[in-house]
Amino acid sequence: MSSMIRDSPLLGAEAPPPHKPCDVSRSMKGRAPVRADLSGSDLQVWSQPRLRTRPGPERPEEGSGMERVLRRCRIQNQLIRECLAECLGVFVLILFGCGSAAQVTTSEERSGQYLSINLGFALGVTFGVFVSRGVSGAHLNPAVSLSLCVLGRHPWMKLPFYVFFQLLGAFLAAATVGLQYYDAIRSYAGGQLTVTGPRATAGIFSTYPADYLSLWGGVVDQVIGTAALLLCLLALGDQRNGSIPDGLQPVLVGSLVLVIGVSMGSNCGYALNPARDLGPRLFTYIAGWGVDVFKAGGGWWWVPIVGPCAGALLGTLIYQLMVEVHHPPLPSECQASCEEASESKMELEAEPHLKSQC
Amino acid sequence: MSSMIRDSPLLGAEAPPPHKPCDVSRSMKGRAPVRADLSGSDLQVWSQPRLRTRPGPERPEEGSGMERVLRRCRIQNQLIRECLAECLGVFVLILFGCGSAAQVTTSEERSGQYLSINLGFALGVTFGVFVSRGVSGAHLNPAVSLSLCVLGRHPWMKLPFYVFFQLLGAFLAAATVGLQYYDAIRSYAGGQLTVTGPRATAGIFSTYPADYLSLWGGVVDQVIGTAALLLCLLALGDQRNGSIPDGLQPVLVGSLVLVIGVSMGSNCGYALNPARDLGPRLFTYIAGWGVDVFKAGGGWWWVPIVGPCAGALLGTLIYQLMVEVHHPPLPSECQASCEEASESKMELEAEPHLKSQC
Amino acid sequence: MSSMIRDSPLLGAEAPPPHKPCDVSRSMKGRAPVRADLSGSDLQVWSQPRLRTRPGPERPEEGSGMERVLRRCRIQNQLIRECLAECLGVFVLILFGCGSAAQVTTSEERSGQYLSINLGFALGVTFGVFVSRGVSGAHLNPAVSLSLCVLGRHPWMKLPFYVFFQLLGAFLAAATVGLQYYDAIRSYAGGQLTVTGPRATAGIFSTYPADYLSLWGGVVDQVIGTAALLLCLLALGDQRNGSIPDGLQPVLVGSLVLVIGVSMGSNCGYALNPARDLGPRLFTYIAGWGVDVFKAGGGWWWVPIVGPCAGALLGTLIYQLMVEVHHPPLPSECQASCEEASESKMELEAEPHLKSQC
Amino acid sequence: MSSMIRDSPLLGAEAPPPHKPCDVSRSMKGRAPVRADLSGSDLQVWSQPRLRTRPGPERPEEGSGMERVLRRCRIQNQLIRECLAECLGVFVLILFGCGSAAQVTTSEERSGQYLSINLGFALGVTFGVFVSRGVSGAHLNPAVSLSLCVLGRHPWMKLPFYVFFQLLGAFLAAATVGLQYYDAIRSYAGGQLTVTGPRATAGIFSTYPADYLSLWGGVVDQVIGTAALLLCLLALGDQRNGSIPDGLQPVLVGSLVLVIGVSMGSNCGYALNPARDLGPRLFTYIAGWGVDVFKAGGGWWWVPIVGPCAGALLGTLIYQLMVEVHHPPLPSECQASCEEASESKMELEAEPHLKSQC
Repeated sequence: MSSMIRDSPLLGAEAPPPHKPCDVSRSMKGRAPVRADLSGSDLQVWSQPRLRTRPGPERPEEGSGMERVLRRCRIQNQLIRECLAECLGVFVLILFGCGSAAQVTTSEERSGQYLSINLGFALGVTFGVFVSRGVSGAHLNPAVSLSLCVLGRHPWMKLPFYVFFQLLGAFLAAATVGLQYYDAIRSYAGGQLTVTGPRATAGIFSTYPADYLSLWGGVVDQVIGTAALLLCLLALGDQRNGSIPDGLQPVLVGSLVLVIGVSMGSNCGYALNPARDLGPRLFTYIAGWGVDVFKAGGGWWWVPIVGPCAGALLGTLIYQLMVEVHHPPLPSECQASCEEASESKMELEAEPHLKSQC
Repeated sequence: MSSMIRDSPLLGAEAPPPHKPCDVSRSMKGRAPVRADLSGSDLQVWSQPRLRTRPGPERPEEGSGMERVLRRCRIQNQLIRECLAECLGVFVLILFGCGSAAQVTTSEERSGQYLSINLGFALGVTFGVFVSRGVSGAHLNPAVSLSLCVLGRHPWMKLPFYVFFQLLGAFLAAATVGLQYYDAIRSYAGGQLTVTGPRATAGIFSTYPADYLSLWGGVVDQVIGTAALLLCLLALGDQRNGSIPDGLQPVLVGSLVLVIGVSMGSNCGYALNPARDLGPRLFTYIAGWGVDVFKAGGGWWWVPIVGPCAGALLGTLIYQLMVEVHHPPLPSECQASCEEASESKMELEAEPHLKSQC
Repeated sequence: MSSMIRDSPLLGAEAPPPHKPCDVSRSMKGRAPVRADLSGSDLQVWSQPRLRTRPGPERPEEGSGMERVLRRCRIQNQLIRECLAECLGVFVLILFGCGSAAQVTTSEERSGQYLSINLGFALGVTFGVFVSRGVSGAHLNPAVSLSLCVLGRHPWMKLPFYVFFQLLGAFLAAATVGLQYYDAIRSYAGGQLTVTGPRATAGIFSTYPADYLSLWGGVVDQVIGTAALLLCLLALGDQRNGSIPDGLQPVLVGSLVLVIGVSMGSNCGYALNPARDLGPRLFTYIAGWGVDVFKAGGGWWWVPIVGPCAGALLGTLIYQLMVEVHHPPLPSECQASCEEASESKMELEAEPHLKSQC
Repeated sequence: MSSMIRDSPLLGAEAPPPHKPCDVSRSMKGRAPVRADLSGSDLQVWSQPRLRTRPGPERPEEGSGMERVLRRCRIQNQLIRECLAECLGVFVLILFGCGSAAQVTTSEERSGQYLSINLGFALGVTFGVFVSRGVSGAHLNPAVSLSLCVLGRHPWMKLPFYVFFQLLGAFLAAATVGLQYYDAIRSYAGGQLTVTGPRATAGIFSTYPADYLSLWGGVVDQVIGTAALLLCLLALGDQRNGSIPDGLQPVLVGSLVLVIGVSMGSNCGYALNPARDLGPRLFTYIAGWGVDVFKAGGGWWWVPIVGPCAGALLGTLIYQLMVEVHHPPLPSECQASCEEASESKMELEAEPHLKSQC
């Protein structure tokens, strides 16, 4: 039983492992928590299990409607599913983030100010995490994926796939923002798309340094910013430093991005994320802003790629050395036998109703 | 027993099904969670069950006061109850949403700026959901109801009723805002109610496009905005993508509306909801702004009705195809026998105290 | 046992009833949840129980330090304790609320704008509730207390005491704000304290209507605002409309005050609370603003007292008639025998470890 | 068993006490809650235990990667670990707090206004608490540590260590902000670092009084502000005044700092924390602002040190006298025998799977 749990890539999502005949005890693991979560949920009708609790007359038969058709498209490969989730997560992040920048810029601060941009990226991250957390773990940032690989918490072989789909999601989102604000940008920029100058619009999509900032200063800024990001992210994920109610973490990660934007944004726009910056930059390059998007700021474009990666590792190192490595050892570090035992006991806790049967 | 649960339209609200003699095991289902939720609740005196835990002397007899009288008006029809809840939910949403627009407009931005309007609609949605979630599932938006029907998660026969009462709630709320801001609007508009121009006040109630926006651009904007809304709403409701603590969901739905307002509001005011826009528009039509409310923006009025419906379906399709359909099958998709079994075990989990008795 | 629970005025606070010999099973009820809440709590060292889990060497003996001395002042009378809690709760609310108004006014909007005042009152309410919820139920508003009495959820005999101490708390808080901003107000007002005019400062403490607002319009505004407040408060407290995690409710009540301030503040400053307005007004009357505080706005002072009371009743009626009375009956409405039985079963659920012993 | 729990300095973090052979029952205490918290966690891949539930192929062996290397640096001394955590917690607080001040100042309010500074310090506190709560209890403020010692909830012998490392963390964070904003400050200040005048930049790091404020007025402001802070902090930590879900407390403490900043910030910048003010002041003294940082404001520097300590004690006294001491006695105050018994029962509740074995 314990091995079965260990093999389930989806324990988080409270679902049983695929490709196995459904037996009662497993369906318990899958169902019980769902019910629990649903008591009084305001979104209850949006989740299948709740539906099955509706009165017979108005209760649609299993999987009726669109869902039934769509289920034919089901992909079972775990890696592909994770890549799609990362792609959609970053898409949401950039759609809201760059969208808020577009709104503030094209409305000339009548419909929001700098704080709105901070909120746009913060809540963009929050909902990007909600969209992907159960499937891919919601990295949404190559620098985060890199740190997790270095820490040994994420397989290296997945890294290139995650990074590519993060980039793709950012590119597609930038294109969507460009479409949604097409009229606005054209009327604001007076027809011509410029990277610098009074009516520059490239800043809507990717980051450019302030006039006073040296390249070296930009690298320092990106390193410090991303180090702060990882340092706090690891604290949020460190079970031995106090746990966090499920569903609050995406909000906290968003607040973290908010405070970084409020305290580290004016130098060069807190990219902190190679995908967030390069994806939209590629879009602007293609969509008419031209090669200036790479030339501007003295060839600034590489800083939001290299800086965050270095900063992420620095922040990880700091949190590890000052807090995490000093936690007393987890039982997981005992010999397997002990673990085996505990694992199987875990089962019992998860399914009290089976206890008597054991 | 399992069938009984399935038949309860109110499981979410932790209450037993109506019209059945009260037996102990059922009252357990109804009471236990209530007690649990109430431990240390700050609003404890506002909920009956808590009251019964007060010391004898100061404890009023069951149902004394207003409640006792009102209980006579009790409606048992589930559909009517759901319609009333949807109506009140949308009323709250528009009362706060349009109220904030009225405040910012009539105070000429001295008492709030664009961000206040975003907050007004966001928290309006949050409390609209709190008011109705336990009864109707808190759609508050015809486009949402439509998507749920298409998905097969909401009965088609209820759709027209939901939509009508959502419209009604929006209309009544607009009238209330008009009453509350009567003096303010009159003094701001200098007596005459205009739809366009420097002192236009129709924008307080329903949405109008920016000068630069083409009709086609407006449709694209509404489609993208509502797609983003549904995409994230479905993620919040997708139990297999990670659950959310009960009571946090209304706040998250509000935050979602906040970020959409912050990132997609300047083009044409993020209606995203046919009822939110048409209801108040009808009020302005009747209340003195006249037929211009339909003529303005080149006959703009139909865009916030058609766009959101199309967008909602698009967003639903995207989330389904990129995340939800790929989840491994739920036990619910196993043969009935297995389900029956699991259901009955569910009971046990819900009432551990009965376990020994089985 | 069931009667014992029913008699505990403190079940919410997870403590056993006073004046009874301590037996193990009761101490279980008291302690278990506390431990649960404390796992990983960041404030753990601030709560006694956690402390007792510290290593021997650094573990202070029970009740050492200040607490030991203070315990001598312990008051056991429940009503007095509730009055002190209400007083402190309203004190916190007004201290933060009027403080933010003082900051925005005296800094001439350099240190915050209208939104900061909304935040000040919103979070003031949140922390006012946290300070008093476990003891008095955190009404913090005579209009709320009145509605609860009318509903039969609060004893009428307590009403005058609650109202008086709410007023007292507001008065003392206004005095504290006056002290803290003494230099600021003097330098802003140029030495003379005026109720109207360009340098008026009375608005820091209590509400005055906008120039355009008629007395009648003010009454309508206060009635609608307080009706919205009560309508949503009752929804938050209505267990059968979906429950809310303990500790989130104070935040939601604060958000409610925030959205009301953002959408109904510009007419006459959303008092919604007779104590919040009259308490500070009395302070300004005494402290040097003189009788103008009652004369201004055409004798405005009585509107924020009468309006909220009427509005609270209206809002209560609306929520009752549209949602709450239609909920199916709670088991609590079954015959006592059934209740007795269920009650005793409750015990078992609360203390699974006793189950086997029964 | 009960003594074992009592001896664990880490119960909060759900880990077993160090230096003991791992046995199954203890590993249960350690693991069960972790699993529970992780179900559906979006950050799941960041926490080891979750990892072990990944499919065999992609599952890295225990402690692979960086962590394995770092574990060699493990410090077991509890006091050193607490000091490192306090240092890092205050570092995060000041990094975000002073960072936001630097951004608003150097961008001349184009990238944020006063409210952003409030948000910076508020969320800085929130994440400072998240970084340290599980290890040191997250005081982050000498005035808080002092109050807890006076209350007898924190050992006096630890006070000097906590204070020193809080100061150190603040100093290092100020240096980091100075580095990150080096170019920005230089270009804003035109090369010369001044404490007063139109281009003063010392205010980015530590607090200075408004022109109108007398020294005495400043002391009053700091006393009232810190009293409000402690009063509410104690309420948040008072289990008998209603509990708070784990993981929400850091957010509430941040909101508390937000509301204080919004309502008590304009007089002299709400330091409320000797370490927060003195640490950065020392940095500015060394980094080129010179001795003026101590001379300015008529020798202001000592006020944010003395005021908060006095205020913290006042606030503690008020909350104790008005609420906490009046709570009915906890079972913990019964005779040891009863406690012993209850303790051992606690074990059972914590490990239901052991129940049958007892």
